[in-house]
Amino acid sequence: MYSFRNDYSEGAHPRVLQALTDANLVQTVGYGMDPLCETARETIRRLCDAPNADIHFLVGGTQTNLLVIASLLQPYEAVIGAHTSHINTHETGAIEATGHKVCSIDTPDGKLTPALVETVLAEHNGTEHMVSPRMVYISDSTEIGTIYTKSELTALRECCDRHGLLLFLDGARLGSALTAPGNDLTLPDLAALTDAFYIGGTKNGALFGEALVINAPNAHFRWHMKQRGAMLAKGRLLGVQFQAMLEDGLYFDMARHANEMAFRLRDGIAALGYAFPVPSPTNQQFPVLPNTVIAQLQSMGYEFEIDHPVDAQHTCVRFVTSWATPADVIDSFLNDLASCR
Amino acid sequence: MYSFRNDYSEGAHPRVLQALTDANLVQTVGYGMDPLCETARETIRRLCDAPNADIHFLVGGTQTNLLVIASLLQPYEAVIGAHTSHINTHETGAIEATGHKVCSIDTPDGKLTPALVETVLAEHNGTEHMVSPRMVYISDSTEIGTIYTKSELTALRECCDRHGLLLFLDGARLGSALTAPGNDLTLPDLAALTDAFYIGGTKNGALFGEALVINAPNAHFRWHMKQRGAMLAKGRLLGVQFQAMLEDGLYFDMARHANEMAFRLRDGIAALGYAFPVPSPTNQQFPVLPNTVIAQLQSMGYEFEIDHPVDAQHTCVRFVTSWATPADVIDSFLNDLASCR
Amino acid sequence: MYSFRNDYSEGAHPRVLQALTDANLVQTVGYGMDPLCETARETIRRLCDAPNADIHFLVGGTQTNLLVIASLLQPYEAVIGAHTSHINTHETGAIEATGHKVCSIDTPDGKLTPALVETVLAEHNGTEHMVSPRMVYISDSTEIGTIYTKSELTALRECCDRHGLLLFLDGARLGSALTAPGNDLTLPDLAALTDAFYIGGTKNGALFGEALVINAPNAHFRWHMKQRGAMLAKGRLLGVQFQAMLEDGLYFDMARHANEMAFRLRDGIAALGYAFPVPSPTNQQFPVLPNTVIAQLQSMGYEFEIDHPVDAQHTCVRFVTSWATPADVIDSFLNDLASCR
Amino acid sequence: MYSFRNDYSEGAHPRVLQALTDANLVQTVGYGMDPLCETARETIRRLCDAPNADIHFLVGGTQTNLLVIASLLQPYEAVIGAHTSHINTHETGAIEATGHKVCSIDTPDGKLTPALVETVLAEHNGTEHMVSPRMVYISDSTEIGTIYTKSELTALRECCDRHGLLLFLDGARLGSALTAPGNDLTLPDLAALTDAFYIGGTKNGALFGEALVINAPNAHFRWHMKQRGAMLAKGRLLGVQFQAMLEDGLYFDMARHANEMAFRLRDGIAALGYAFPVPSPTNQQFPVLPNTVIAQLQSMGYEFEIDHPVDAQHTCVRFVTSWATPADVIDSFLNDLASCR
Repeated sequence: MYSFRNDYSEGAHPRVLQALTDANLVQTVGYGMDPLCETARETIRRLCDAPNADIHFLVGGTQTNLLVIASLLQPYEAVIGAHTSHINTHETGAIEATGHKVCSIDTPDGKLTPALVETVLAEHNGTEHMVSPRMVYISDSTEIGTIYTKSELTALRECCDRHGLLLFLDGARLGSALTAPGNDLTLPDLAALTDAFYIGGTKNGALFGEALVINAPNAHFRWHMKQRGAMLAKGRLLGVQFQAMLEDGLYFDMARHANEMAFRLRDGIAALGYAFPVPSPTNQQFPVLPNTVIAQLQSMGYEFEIDHPVDAQHTCVRFVTSWATPADVIDSFLNDLASCR
Repeated sequence: MYSFRNDYSEGAHPRVLQALTDANLVQTVGYGMDPLCETARETIRRLCDAPNADIHFLVGGTQTNLLVIASLLQPYEAVIGAHTSHINTHETGAIEATGHKVCSIDTPDGKLTPALVETVLAEHNGTEHMVSPRMVYISDSTEIGTIYTKSELTALRECCDRHGLLLFLDGARLGSALTAPGNDLTLPDLAALTDAFYIGGTKNGALFGEALVINAPNAHFRWHMKQRGAMLAKGRLLGVQFQAMLEDGLYFDMARHANEMAFRLRDGIAALGYAFPVPSPTNQQFPVLPNTVIAQLQSMGYEFEIDHPVDAQHTCVRFVTSWATPADVIDSFLNDLASCR
Repeated sequence: MYSFRNDYSEGAHPRVLQALTDANLVQTVGYGMDPLCETARETIRRLCDAPNADIHFLVGGTQTNLLVIASLLQPYEAVIGAHTSHINTHETGAIEATGHKVCSIDTPDGKLTPALVETVLAEHNGTEHMVSPRMVYISDSTEIGTIYTKSELTALRECCDRHGLLLFLDGARLGSALTAPGNDLTLPDLAALTDAFYIGGTKNGALFGEALVINAPNAHFRWHMKQRGAMLAKGRLLGVQFQAMLEDGLYFDMARHANEMAFRLRDGIAALGYAFPVPSPTNQQFPVLPNTVIAQLQSMGYEFEIDHPVDAQHTCVRFVTSWATPADVIDSFLNDLASCR
Repeated sequence: MYSFRNDYSEGAHPRVLQALTDANLVQTVGYGMDPLCETARETIRRLCDAPNADIHFLVGGTQTNLLVIASLLQPYEAVIGAHTSHINTHETGAIEATGHKVCSIDTPDGKLTPALVETVLAEHNGTEHMVSPRMVYISDSTEIGTIYTKSELTALRECCDRHGLLLFLDGARLGSALTAPGNDLTLPDLAALTDAFYIGGTKNGALFGEALVINAPNAHFRWHMKQRGAMLAKGRLLGVQFQAMLEDGLYFDMARHANEMAFRLRDGIAALGYAFPVPSPTNQQFPVLPNTVIAQLQSMGYEFEIDHPVDAQHTCVRFVTSWATPADVIDSFLNDLASCR
């Protein structure tokens, strides 16, 4: 009777909703040019230690990904991503729909490395007969829950500099990554090491919204936004939410809670003897369960996503926690799981 | 000290916001497949007397326009629109960015007629050397405040049928149109006479949102939505808002109020001797004011859009009212206007 | 029994074909990187007095237009063209298919002027809500046979410079234009006054081919060509043809002949009392004929294009002459025309 | 002093050139609607035993690939290809530039099988969050010289039917494939087993040209052609060449010669002890040579393409023969190779 299907199963954190309510009747200009957005931009620049960053608020992740990629690449340039990356799998070809190839490569853990990037580059000969790989796309946390360390991200940055590549970090689940055990990255690190990254709101307590930080001047990004139907008329809604989440640490508090709930869940599942093929320090957990157990959990009313079959009797599933997941629900679930089979 | 700049200068009507708050912690599946959206869809089907209509909730108007046009046209097909139409002017080429030509034509009042449509058709020879005009795009109310009557819309429908064209109605300001003096169209009429139309929320009391009604099966519209970055993760937000606006007439009450405020403003301005070149029965009013008066109003803190210069001393400006415009603000403004020069 | 339908009704001038035959068994690298193309490029640079021009050979005009426009514009930028311009009428939306809007404007004679360009600019407000007109597209000769003078082209160049616009000249019928009475433009003028232009081969004696002259460095034009399927494997075929046409003036001799035949035709038709609404000094002529006469000519086996109806009894038609049109065919035609009705 | 770089290093077979010369001064209508093209279409329909096939002549392979794929797929649909397939490697992202994803998969020999196709399908979940793989793209001969048998192609057809997929065969080197030892496919087989395929002229004796055979009605393919700049004004040039090549077997004679020269080369190289990792029965041969030998051959004036490094001392190279390759050149080359190191 609980859904672990995703981290956007509820509305917004009550304080975010309250902020929207408080500002509701204030009149402002549209399209994100209002003072509420400007305040949020200043907060983000301060938190990122990036006084000149170009900051835009978008409604969703796919929209943000396609806009960043389409606006920063020339028509014949391509983006490198993990085979499991969101842009390569779960965006219905949104990147290709803007005309750009995604050069994907298999990874053991959803993470790109300089060696993997250079493998892709080596398949391209620099002539007009092939696309020019020009951007590296990574996610933190990744689509399978793993995170980048500062040394890994620094190595990717150096690799990109060596080869004239842009580095773009999808932060749809950035809160969970930055509060994960083992993480040593900070917002200023991201601003310093990437060409663009975003602070995901949709999956961490906002009604919706991604705050994109572009670390290079981009005079016409708003033209791209409008042309793709990505400019929210009441843009202020995005500024208000990000200010509410970021002004006093709520964003990280929510992410930390989601992680803690995920670990409580993970440890409980593991204690019952089930395996996790890829260890995840974030709010997505991927245990392998017997199909019979899965069916019993579903019949009890639990919801979660099927990731992939492992063998005829077992399936890897995904559990996601959020800022809204109560601890007692985890405990009830673990009791129910213990009773299965 | 008041903005007549647009009808999206505030947040949402308090009852809409309350509905979002009430549903905030309910868990649902994402992407608009939830019961809250389904309830709103049923309400719309009932109000439109269109039990089989395909209904999708989108975040904004440009997004809706480009999706409808790109999903219903073949690559070599074009859309016919007034020269002043939103898709031809204020969407940064969003339609062309999906590959489709907008065949525009001058109109006296922002409205298309069978004769104008046939003028465009006559410029095309039906061979592979020219685009095939295949859709007629109209707005109700139009970009300059005018509205369609039932006989006018019926004539366009018949024209479309004669020539094998689709008819798409942009309803970003549909509330204002359907509650305007002289209007005799209803939601069931729109469902019967167009191939697709939408009920605009952004400009009539929602935080955001357009409810698209497609009057023909369209099995893959959601694929198009996702590919264009137009699928809201917490799609429920759209369903909740439309249900709150439509379940008991709030949507039309708000539009009626906006219109009444517009007429109060229009009549007051006219009483001071200023002209309105194109009469508008809706919530956008376009008087011609002396430039000196405009400057004085601006210095008093009033905001409104400059539409176009009329001569060296006069400019046509736009005033927009909304569900949130108070009557006493209109009266104060008229007093202030009377005091100018 | 003769076709005045177009200037590409035959193959190539025999000397062009002979050059292809002579070079037929020489081995070269592909894609236009061969010495035969390089020789032609050097000839063109010399004739244009443009030693640094970037020169590319393309197969056809629509292909060249879409490549130049798509490669030189940003996604949100648009191109300005006459309402009658080829890109706006007879390319099946090829420009829009690359994502760019064509901002068209009515003209009396198919030619753009600074005033017309500035009329289009004045309709755009420089914000992200509208496309940015960034290129002016003209044709010489135009789609209705008229030509630009040096002072007209200079004025357009100055207008473009004032407004930061690129100037692109479609030279599909450049030979006819440059050899027309009243012309005072030269290839060096075109290289100096435009950002890009092309020397049309298809409509003046080649099997096919347009020689594009880009007057600014464009390091990746070949990437665009390949991506659009516009890179000819045996690119040498284009170099051989242009060298044959340009090395000793054949190109201009052919165009001069086409013009002379057009004037012989025009003067004979006029002598019979038929009107030419728009005077044309080039190889396309547009007389108005009675529909009964048109029917008689067609029944005699003459072919020509119907341009547009003038009234219930009269139609404007198009006659096109070429390098291959024999004088005696003109004379026979005029005799036959004299006998009509 | 000889180039084995490609099979399009020369012009056309003399009989093809003669046919162009013979028809040079005949007047016809443009764009491939002329009787010369119609004759060639009839020849192809007869040879394919496909009286209702829709046949179009295109200038080149990339152009043909992008047109077929873009015209037959919906925007959210994708094409499956081998990782080594031409559309995935050597077309500068031409398919993605039309908006479609190429779902590529590793193969041992450049050939797709039902199992490989189903592996790609299994990665897609049939929802709007992922592209819909809808077409299988194969080449015969493949990019690495291998060919399909009739049973293999039949199995792919059955696989496509099971999953509702289209099957498209790139025949840029179809002549070499159909005349290869081990081939048991015929033109009627291809017409019966694929949805579309093409008979490549560019790489087998034409100046340029691919004859596309679409085995399903496609009323608007010419609109797509024109919009992509792929409609040749003097379309007759394509009809004349294909008629010359196909009316009496020249096409297959040329391909057979190319293959024989390739085998003479392959057998000679193998006799000298060099390995061919992937056996090829067609006109592309991929031996592994010591880098020192490669350098010596290059210094003698031989040209060929570097395929990929094998180890620090060895490289896999590509030799291509054509209708124009003389036997004595092969023998001289083998002598020279024998003298290396």
